[in-house]
Amino acid sequence: MSPLPADPAVLLERARADDRVALARLLSYVERGGETATAVARLAYRSDVPFTVGLTGAPGSGKSTLTDGLITEVRDGWPGAAAIPQVAVLAVDPSSPFSGGAILGDRVRMSQHALDPTVFIRSMATRGHLGGLSLAVPDAIRLFGAAGIGVIIVETVGVGQMEVEIASAADTTAVVVTPGWGDSMQASKAGLLEVADVFVINKADRPGVREARRDLEQMLDLARPGAWRPEIVDTTATAGEGVAELWRAVARHRDHLVRSGQLVVRRTDRLAQELRRVLLARTEVRVDELVVGEEFTTAVKALAAGELDPYQAADGLLGG
Amino acid sequence: MSPLPADPAVLLERARADDRVALARLLSYVERGGETATAVARLAYRSDVPFTVGLTGAPGSGKSTLTDGLITEVRDGWPGAAAIPQVAVLAVDPSSPFSGGAILGDRVRMSQHALDPTVFIRSMATRGHLGGLSLAVPDAIRLFGAAGIGVIIVETVGVGQMEVEIASAADTTAVVVTPGWGDSMQASKAGLLEVADVFVINKADRPGVREARRDLEQMLDLARPGAWRPEIVDTTATAGEGVAELWRAVARHRDHLVRSGQLVVRRTDRLAQELRRVLLARTEVRVDELVVGEEFTTAVKALAAGELDPYQAADGLLGG
Repeated sequence: MSPLPADPAVLLERARADDRVALARLLSYVERGGETATAVARLAYRSDVPFTVGLTGAPGSGKSTLTDGLITEVRDGWPGAAAIPQVAVLAVDPSSPFSGGAILGDRVRMSQHALDPTVFIRSMATRGHLGGLSLAVPDAIRLFGAAGIGVIIVETVGVGQMEVEIASAADTTAVVVTPGWGDSMQASKAGLLEVADVFVINKADRPGVREARRDLEQMLDLARPGAWRPEIVDTTATAGEGVAELWRAVARHRDHLVRSGQLVVRRTDRLAQELRRVLLARTEVRVDELVVGEEFTTAVKALAAGELDPYQAADGLLGG
Repeated sequence: MSPLPADPAVLLERARADDRVALARLLSYVERGGETATAVARLAYRSDVPFTVGLTGAPGSGKSTLTDGLITEVRDGWPGAAAIPQVAVLAVDPSSPFSGGAILGDRVRMSQHALDPTVFIRSMATRGHLGGLSLAVPDAIRLFGAAGIGVIIVETVGVGQMEVEIASAADTTAVVVTPGWGDSMQASKAGLLEVADVFVINKADRPGVREARRDLEQMLDLARPGAWRPEIVDTTATAGEGVAELWRAVARHRDHLVRSGQLVVRRTDRLAQELRRVLLARTEVRVDELVVGEEFTTAVKALAAGELDPYQAADGLLGG
């Protein structure tokens, strides 16, 4: 094979023709941000995206092992063996300042599917500014789609606002808790409830499963009634227990989305949110250009001299 | 006294005439954000601001007790008793979703200066969006200045990026650590080193002070050499020990700022950072206006139909 070109358009052609090295390069572009990321995002844009499952939960709740189990379900249990979809995992750690290399290697080595050519595992870390990951994740999902991958699992570590936002960029979001979770995640409960389509109580071989389930049921009882009440599935991912049932629960939610027309509504909502983020990113670029200009320096001097206030100065710079 | 008016201009006149209730109302406006916050900020803008000390450190490092001790130093130890400055404390908790009321009461009750009319203590919590506090804090400092308060202590809980940004909106920033801090704050060390003008090892009656000091000295040895090497002061705030020395260290740093001309440079840098944040806030308002418009809805439909990509759509909406 000829050496990897730098041109995103050529790389995308190759990724479409099953070249996973070209796909990995495009994902790196998207992760890094800046002009090339924008160029790749524009080339790879498609309104049709693969089915995406989000998996979020506190560190140590066993998401990686659950993901591995779900991959097995997709690969072994997909109805109609002739068309088993390829699977991609996007493991996102919003709190990690590291890029690609190190965690990627670890995450891949940890997987029992590391050697399966139909499974593509990729880590993604922050791009240095808040919101960068929220922009990169949907672009990555579209790149997977362009490369013919049919099922995507987006795995995020943590239960903060950013993590939940990323996980909810999926069609079906599963929130992973463990027995005894309630006390440690008191503050995040409302946010988790809002995004969860399925709840997973993992490490269900430990004491406290009944209490965790009762806790979740109570939360759900108190929540605003909607068309969908999240199922609660017990799993012991390390032993493979409950994972097939989790996959069935995910599939049931997906069926509900399709039948109710919510799939289209959700995806359109996601596009609206993404467009808002792109608008903010574009205006931020414009502000960064302003800040290095001569007019900005003059405005700061006027502030220091008390001749202008910051709002007058800003409106002047923005031509308002 | 007549009931409190709502008009910011009238409130500001009253605050200038020592009406602390009017001052508190203005601070609430600034904390809440939106159009009224902008109006207050514009009215209260002044290039001349009081001397401001930032105090940041992990929860439980004893910042509140240290602040109380520093207030006593200012009130008792200011050279030239005829002109003892009034003191304001702005206690900021970027991680807290609560506004004004509750924590404010707690923070005031905790202080031994709660009944001193020359000491003004105020808590400030997030205004619901990232960056809101960074905008509110300099406005609050200017309001204190307008009200004739001469020394301000900005106390922030935590050592994350946001907390450090807020604390560094001061003329002199003191970073509070405790014995044994090194292991728990490994990740924040670089950021703390960047903003610290003074290091405080509080709870110095506990074991591990020597190690903490050695740790800090090593960090400082490795840091880029600058004109100012932060002093390290041991305190036991609960017993009042070392607090006078801390205040002297703060005063020495202030003298250095004034003599070297760095005070003007720092304050101008702060104004530039503030102007950038106002620019971002103003463009965010513009984006929020776009998002509720008809053109936005049309753009989202075009995205869903695959007729546009998000960047084309954004540039179209921004008229670019």
